[in-house]
Amino acid sequence: MSHLMAEMPWTQYRRRIDAGAVVLLPLGSVEQHGPHLPLGTDHLLATAVSADAARMLAGRGRDAMVAPALAYGYKSQPHMGGGQAFPGTTSLDAMTLIGQVRDILRELHRHGCRRIVVVNSHCENQAFAWEGIDLARREHPQLRVMRLEYWDFTAPSTLDAVFPDGFPGWALEHAAVVETSLMLHYHPALVDMAALPDEPAAAFPVWDLCPQPDGLVPSQGVLSPARGADAAKGARIAADCVAGIVDAVLRDLR
Amino acid sequence: MSHLMAEMPWTQYRRRIDAGAVVLLPLGSVEQHGPHLPLGTDHLLATAVSADAARMLAGRGRDAMVAPALAYGYKSQPHMGGGQAFPGTTSLDAMTLIGQVRDILRELHRHGCRRIVVVNSHCENQAFAWEGIDLARREHPQLRVMRLEYWDFTAPSTLDAVFPDGFPGWALEHAAVVETSLMLHYHPALVDMAALPDEPAAAFPVWDLCPQPDGLVPSQGVLSPARGADAAKGARIAADCVAGIVDAVLRDLR
Amino acid sequence: MSHLMAEMPWTQYRRRIDAGAVVLLPLGSVEQHGPHLPLGTDHLLATAVSADAARMLAGRGRDAMVAPALAYGYKSQPHMGGGQAFPGTTSLDAMTLIGQVRDILRELHRHGCRRIVVVNSHCENQAFAWEGIDLARREHPQLRVMRLEYWDFTAPSTLDAVFPDGFPGWALEHAAVVETSLMLHYHPALVDMAALPDEPAAAFPVWDLCPQPDGLVPSQGVLSPARGADAAKGARIAADCVAGIVDAVLRDLR
Amino acid sequence: MSHLMAEMPWTQYRRRIDAGAVVLLPLGSVEQHGPHLPLGTDHLLATAVSADAARMLAGRGRDAMVAPALAYGYKSQPHMGGGQAFPGTTSLDAMTLIGQVRDILRELHRHGCRRIVVVNSHCENQAFAWEGIDLARREHPQLRVMRLEYWDFTAPSTLDAVFPDGFPGWALEHAAVVETSLMLHYHPALVDMAALPDEPAAAFPVWDLCPQPDGLVPSQGVLSPARGADAAKGARIAADCVAGIVDAVLRDLR
Amino acid sequence: MSHLMAEMPWTQYRRRIDAGAVVLLPLGSVEQHGPHLPLGTDHLLATAVSADAARMLAGRGRDAMVAPALAYGYKSQPHMGGGQAFPGTTSLDAMTLIGQVRDILRELHRHGCRRIVVVNSHCENQAFAWEGIDLARREHPQLRVMRLEYWDFTAPSTLDAVFPDGFPGWALEHAAVVETSLMLHYHPALVDMAALPDEPAAAFPVWDLCPQPDGLVPSQGVLSPARGADAAKGARIAADCVAGIVDAVLRDLR
Amino acid sequence: MSHLMAEMPWTQYRRRIDAGAVVLLPLGSVEQHGPHLPLGTDHLLATAVSADAARMLAGRGRDAMVAPALAYGYKSQPHMGGGQAFPGTTSLDAMTLIGQVRDILRELHRHGCRRIVVVNSHCENQAFAWEGIDLARREHPQLRVMRLEYWDFTAPSTLDAVFPDGFPGWALEHAAVVETSLMLHYHPALVDMAALPDEPAAAFPVWDLCPQPDGLVPSQGVLSPARGADAAKGARIAADCVAGIVDAVLRDLR
Repeated sequence: MSHLMAEMPWTQYRRRIDAGAVVLLPLGSVEQHGPHLPLGTDHLLATAVSADAARMLAGRGRDAMVAPALAYGYKSQPHMGGGQAFPGTTSLDAMTLIGQVRDILRELHRHGCRRIVVVNSHCENQAFAWEGIDLARREHPQLRVMRLEYWDFTAPSTLDAVFPDGFPGWALEHAAVVETSLMLHYHPALVDMAALPDEPAAAFPVWDLCPQPDGLVPSQGVLSPARGADAAKGARIAADCVAGIVDAVLRDLR
Repeated sequence: MSHLMAEMPWTQYRRRIDAGAVVLLPLGSVEQHGPHLPLGTDHLLATAVSADAARMLAGRGRDAMVAPALAYGYKSQPHMGGGQAFPGTTSLDAMTLIGQVRDILRELHRHGCRRIVVVNSHCENQAFAWEGIDLARREHPQLRVMRLEYWDFTAPSTLDAVFPDGFPGWALEHAAVVETSLMLHYHPALVDMAALPDEPAAAFPVWDLCPQPDGLVPSQGVLSPARGADAAKGARIAADCVAGIVDAVLRDLR
Repeated sequence: MSHLMAEMPWTQYRRRIDAGAVVLLPLGSVEQHGPHLPLGTDHLLATAVSADAARMLAGRGRDAMVAPALAYGYKSQPHMGGGQAFPGTTSLDAMTLIGQVRDILRELHRHGCRRIVVVNSHCENQAFAWEGIDLARREHPQLRVMRLEYWDFTAPSTLDAVFPDGFPGWALEHAAVVETSLMLHYHPALVDMAALPDEPAAAFPVWDLCPQPDGLVPSQGVLSPARGADAAKGARIAADCVAGIVDAVLRDLR
Repeated sequence: MSHLMAEMPWTQYRRRIDAGAVVLLPLGSVEQHGPHLPLGTDHLLATAVSADAARMLAGRGRDAMVAPALAYGYKSQPHMGGGQAFPGTTSLDAMTLIGQVRDILRELHRHGCRRIVVVNSHCENQAFAWEGIDLARREHPQLRVMRLEYWDFTAPSTLDAVFPDGFPGWALEHAAVVETSLMLHYHPALVDMAALPDEPAAAFPVWDLCPQPDGLVPSQGVLSPARGADAAKGARIAADCVAGIVDAVLRDLR
Repeated sequence: MSHLMAEMPWTQYRRRIDAGAVVLLPLGSVEQHGPHLPLGTDHLLATAVSADAARMLAGRGRDAMVAPALAYGYKSQPHMGGGQAFPGTTSLDAMTLIGQVRDILRELHRHGCRRIVVVNSHCENQAFAWEGIDLARREHPQLRVMRLEYWDFTAPSTLDAVFPDGFPGWALEHAAVVETSLMLHYHPALVDMAALPDEPAAAFPVWDLCPQPDGLVPSQGVLSPARGADAAKGARIAADCVAGIVDAVLRDLR
Repeated sequence: MSHLMAEMPWTQYRRRIDAGAVVLLPLGSVEQHGPHLPLGTDHLLATAVSADAARMLAGRGRDAMVAPALAYGYKSQPHMGGGQAFPGTTSLDAMTLIGQVRDILRELHRHGCRRIVVVNSHCENQAFAWEGIDLARREHPQLRVMRLEYWDFTAPSTLDAVFPDGFPGWALEHAAVVETSLMLHYHPALVDMAALPDEPAAAFPVWDLCPQPDGLVPSQGVLSPARGADAAKGARIAADCVAGIVDAVLRDLR
């Protein structure tokens, strides 16, 4: 049985919602992820992690379905995703993204759904997703919504294993070891390890400057070296994230 | 070589845009399509037809790429898609949809793209897509945008073959012979022919009434019987649509 | 007794609303209608048909009043009204039109009105009127709203009589036989039959192109020849439309 | 030759715009005006004064056309028009009114028009009209726009004659002597002098209170007694306003 | 005990709101006020008058707190504040100002506050503040809001004393005797009487023209001579306004 | 000479802008900061740090002025500022905040200003300030804008000194040692050290939940103990931040 809402008829969806199923809404982006990862990396990963979580939730007695991802996200920030200067990065204005989250939550509420998990894979979406949730809940305060970035559920022991020289922190993990490993796990055919650049990690000042200064971002868009990535690491990170989301939902999204 | 923008790195995308590639933007919906077709029928078909068209365009010397579909569309109308009362139908407010089209076109323009084809699969999107295009072109009048509903390219001879008793017109072709055949062609695993209902075709008055009257729409959401659908018909319709779009782009989107 | 809301004092309006009167809201445009019809053709016809319908409704025991028309409508489409390139065509952005419909319905609700008929005379308004109605009903679900294009009530026998060579369909009926006949019936002083152009009917492809290609639209703005128009035909069409609207309201807008 | 844009074909409009015609845009309201004046008083007067001004401008060598009035205006204020509590008063949200003014000016600019006169008849519209003009001029700084309330052109000697006991000021002139006289001049069939109430003038505090206190506004909506109104006074006031607008346009809207 | 909300912890604020305190919200501007008064004159005065009123209200048994002023206001009008051409005048679009008033009132309602006084010091804010209040009350009709311009409470006897040659009216009182006197009373260190210009009073036509004509506004931004200003006059005006506001609140904002 | 724009006449402002002065725009909030700090803590600190930075910039040859702070900010997040449940926390919708930043930058551009520093003191504002800057730069790409959170310039050695037991990170520094110390340095009269609560530090999960769970946030709103705060620490932190901002502006905002 599929957990993807887009792949099931409305009759099945209704049955599952009526029985109390949770809906997971993946938020992604269309954003450069270096010369080795595809532009859709974020929404592909958000969907993959959400689908795994839905399967595991069902296995643990709480049915779940995954709504179609928001493929387009908010504007890329230089220190998070390389910034808006890369061709291919295709981003929405704040109001458009906020409106999408608000509208979809309003519709899920109309269907009878009361428990929603917003699974974000693109940092820049965070504040706007929050606003969309808040606007939907202003109309429908009965909605209960969990919002998260999936990678935050990676266990410290996993990070130790993935980064034997020490985890440098999430700040520069764009198109780097974690995302590359996850893509090698979930979508290996879309990864071109031969294209991995050799650029060093970016170093960002604490301020933002608009327009962004020349040379601020590594020219190929990888914010820190992705050399150590492999599918096994991706599998391990994915397992942590999926289990972490499932635990959180079962424990806290009552 | 993939034609899906989401599956290629930015470096490939840039190269192709710089060489003049067209971008196709599929517009879909998350909408009930009867008990035998999935909720994502519209965006799945818009993407499939667009991808075929992109491949054929490339084969005829005009490179093309397919942007991620807008999976969510405008609110379902009773006489077009059964209306908003079906659980699972998940729709956007006008401004949200308009904003998405405007924002994505603005971004494609920033990338250097000047020729865009908006491939719509959900009637209700039509006017709002137009507004989004108009707002984007108000900012960037150099953009040239073709907008179409894919099924309009089906040849009369194909309609004769698909509907041996005479084509009743597009008005009630929701979750009916055409869409079911196309899904059997493109995504057979997502079609459940055993679930096909036996309800007669809907008959709509010339006015709209809000709220929609009870009994106006067939209870399972199929607006006219889909019994005659098969994959071969889907293949033939798809071939017409794809070739028609390709011809239009080559001839008119200069 | 007038049926035009603009021509009555509030005291009369209140009395009639309190007694259950229906309100008709005409939607028009300021749009080129060829060299022989005035720019206000759409809102003049919408108002005229609405006023006739209100009179007939009152005569059949259901009081009705006509709110001032929205004189300005959505942007003209080439294949519906010649497109935005004609000087004189004066159109609103989507949000402005949506807002007007929403605001006026909200106000009618505040007055105590619960039954509204939106009488549209400009195809391009259709989707945006729907959104305005939907937004008003989101706030005030007690509102019951009928939405229609008046010409859809023309009887087949009338079309046979008006088009002795066969009715070519509504698609090209812009500034053509139907609208010219109706204007000769309702506002003959504003019609200049001597100015009727001799251009052949337009032929549109199934796609839209922005910007619109040169030569797509007949240079004078008449989408199909209006030669056969006369006031008697206008009277007959008007009679059908008025009676059709009245029947629909009495039967279905309960 | 008509000066009403709605009554002329686009071909005539284009000719006149190309020759430098000014466009007057009347702003009105649908608002209670006591039991003796119709709800449309404001937009009827704004249109009548604008049409007279257009004729006089043409007679003095400066062609002018009158665009269809904005029939609906901003929300009625208690001390200006009795407030929103009267059934029949039908008002727009700020953004809707702003958008209409902005959109129409943008369109007039597209037509080639560069000189516009916004003729307001409803105080509450003033600030929002200004914003609409400002937003249109942000896009099209070449536009030159004169904005006015027509009554401000009434000569002091006329006020002396109209108010033999002394002009009490414009503040309470709602549905009172000036508007009643003007309607008796322009639209006598719509005035019911027999319905004139005998309520004394309103007395407003300097603050606004929301919701408005009971008894703040005279129960029939006339803010000061209209007893002295007659058509001759209306003619004299109209003559002043029309001539004043014409002089201002000829002298200052270059 | 402070009456400024910004200077108290939430615990104190909650206690006072729970006990029924009124909140005053000052609306100001950042706008030229001649070469002798600072750009913040409006929001400084609105805050000072509000704080005095809050103290006096507390002394008369009705606790009151002053929310942080909206420092930025709507666009300056030539005849009210010199217009937008002066560097330093820093103004908001209508929707931004409307949104601020709406949002803050919504939040005060959430806190449990039901009585609010909007103390305006910048004429141009008036209509937009009204809209903000209306939108907040559409959501929360229990809110009772008084809206005022503080100077309207100046007693006629005070005006006689302040203007021994006769009060010329409020129309040109921008950066003139009243505001200068009030600033000498409340913020003498920010007034530079030596910089007072000698320009005569402005004389405005009854129409607005956009763009504003050269020479319409006195070059230094003072709309009528401020020579007679002094701190004693400021104290007297302030005393009237504060007492007037307090009386209005005690009597009418129940 | 003052560096606060609100305290200077437009003539001085113009002179300084014409000579190339930078404008600093402080962004704050009205938000609970525990029982010992006032609701205005954020905008008070943002203004104080900005004023110090402006003075130091002037001393180093680059004139600078501080625009009035945006006193109200975006909605409080539980893990950043305790969330929206505290009375007194008074927050704006996303669009309102975005609009303010956009409008003010647009106006500064009109004044001739080309270099702006947005000094943020409330984490939740970050993304919306970015959008406001982006929308302003879409209109005026010549604008160069630096955006920062002031505390990020605190030197590691200062953190070592302020937190002798080790700096626990910025995450829980709300109403805690850093802000309390800064308020003791800048506004000691507004701090009530006797009211300091004894609650332990908050511990937040990696997900957000709406509505926020009971007990998630310490009941008095202090996210980690503020016991060690003193004015000397505040002075040291302030000195770092001010110098850091000044260095960044001189080096990078060219």
